[in-house]
Amino acid sequence: MGQDGFTLEMAVRDYECDMQGVVNNSVYQNYLEHARHEYFKTLGIDFAEMTKQGINLVVTRVEIDYKTSLVSGDRFEVAVRMEQLSPVRIGFYQDICRLPDRKAVVRALVTGTALNAKGRPQLPEALKQILVRA
Amino acid sequence: MGQDGFTLEMAVRDYECDMQGVVNNSVYQNYLEHARHEYFKTLGIDFAEMTKQGINLVVTRVEIDYKTSLVSGDRFEVAVRMEQLSPVRIGFYQDICRLPDRKAVVRALVTGTALNAKGRPQLPEALKQILVRA
Amino acid sequence: MGQDGFTLEMAVRDYECDMQGVVNNSVYQNYLEHARHEYFKTLGIDFAEMTKQGINLVVTRVEIDYKTSLVSGDRFEVAVRMEQLSPVRIGFYQDICRLPDRKAVVRALVTGTALNAKGRPQLPEALKQILVRA
Amino acid sequence: MGQDGFTLEMAVRDYECDMQGVVNNSVYQNYLEHARHEYFKTLGIDFAEMTKQGINLVVTRVEIDYKTSLVSGDRFEVAVRMEQLSPVRIGFYQDICRLPDRKAVVRALVTGTALNAKGRPQLPEALKQILVRA
Repeated sequence: MGQDGFTLEMAVRDYECDMQGVVNNSVYQNYLEHARHEYFKTLGIDFAEMTKQGINLVVTRVEIDYKTSLVSGDRFEVAVRMEQLSPVRIGFYQDICRLPDRKAVVRALVTGTALNAKGRPQLPEALKQILVRA
Repeated sequence: MGQDGFTLEMAVRDYECDMQGVVNNSVYQNYLEHARHEYFKTLGIDFAEMTKQGINLVVTRVEIDYKTSLVSGDRFEVAVRMEQLSPVRIGFYQDICRLPDRKAVVRALVTGTALNAKGRPQLPEALKQILVRA
Repeated sequence: MGQDGFTLEMAVRDYECDMQGVVNNSVYQNYLEHARHEYFKTLGIDFAEMTKQGINLVVTRVEIDYKTSLVSGDRFEVAVRMEQLSPVRIGFYQDICRLPDRKAVVRALVTGTALNAKGRPQLPEALKQILVRA
Repeated sequence: MGQDGFTLEMAVRDYECDMQGVVNNSVYQNYLEHARHEYFKTLGIDFAEMTKQGINLVVTRVEIDYKTSLVSGDRFEVAVRMEQLSPVRIGFYQDICRLPDRKAVVRALVTGTALNAKGRPQLPEALKQILVRA
């Protein structure tokens, strides 16, 4: 039972910081997306490949709590835990913590689904089987 | 009573679209931020100026529902309505709708505060007075 | 003969500024690209549409001189003048100047071509006819 | 004699790709900047720290040749070699090659300088000494 999830270590790049000298709020969504896609790869799901096949993995809702700002030079870890929320919706519980002190930076719940060629929500078989195993 | 809020018309730029051919999720946060800052200007508050003065307007939480994707060539409108949620927190109710059909694109609640030089939440007088008038 | 070219007025958005408080160098390429694509539209060429048809308009070289930095609140104008440099290469002479003082911000030469389905350089008929008229 | 330079390994993130399914042209400038700043760190120069001290390292010109496009999933290496071009200008010869096949992706010459508090070009002592040693 239970799914271990996935963690990815990253580091702030200077161009991601805004005039306040901190990582701009929108950039955390880039970090979260990148971690989800890297997680998918470890599960045998390639985002770009699915897009080419006409299956669009889409985000329908995000909730992000900003706890601490990352600044130039910071290393951090993005954790992802996946959970099926309904027959067609998946929830990604994602936390970003600064390294090495593990201070909470961002806490997020990203809800997504997959749209088939007709634009209808439909989770791909591969994803369903992974969620069942989870 | 009641505050009319603010609306800003914008248009999708091609570099904002990702490999799915739609505006990337993180970009909507850019749109939302830009509309808030433009709104501030009409209220006599300059984000860059405040930053220079050591007052940091920060976002503490976002909730974004993605309804429809914007694509290359789309025009859209970002609406902002501001409301004081607590002595130190402001809520920005923000909607993005596509033009000219006004189809809902994004519905968001962005919560923010202002941090003074000591990093403590403290709304600037100018902002408080505006909220009282609202 | 001579071609009048195209100008587009834009304004800096705060998220485009970096920790130095100025528009980040890479963002000017976004401005330049956006102006080229808007110019294309006035000529009846839609970048997204061509991409869908398998014709990729690509940049092969950029030269950008940075003269003055744009900051928060600045309005500016991007000018584009197009010239055929060889049977398969187009040059875009692009200048950005600040408004209203018209101070030079960026001076660029962007060289591009179009790649057909086989990945071979081949200018679309529509583009060739425009260049001939120019 | 001679300076060995610096290399940084990176990987494409999906949000960096545009509707053509390749890394957007402007993003390579982000890669190049990030590699330069990481290089600086190995030399004891911290970009954010210098910015705080009022010394702005700025780019005055870029020349970038785009050879091959990076796509989702690609790993690549950014090489930097630094050379003093004049008393106040530094040249960064930067190459990006795809891994593991080392196919040329981008070849760039980025020219920069440092502006002191008065906005005058002036290379910091630390940087000069490094260039002399090179």
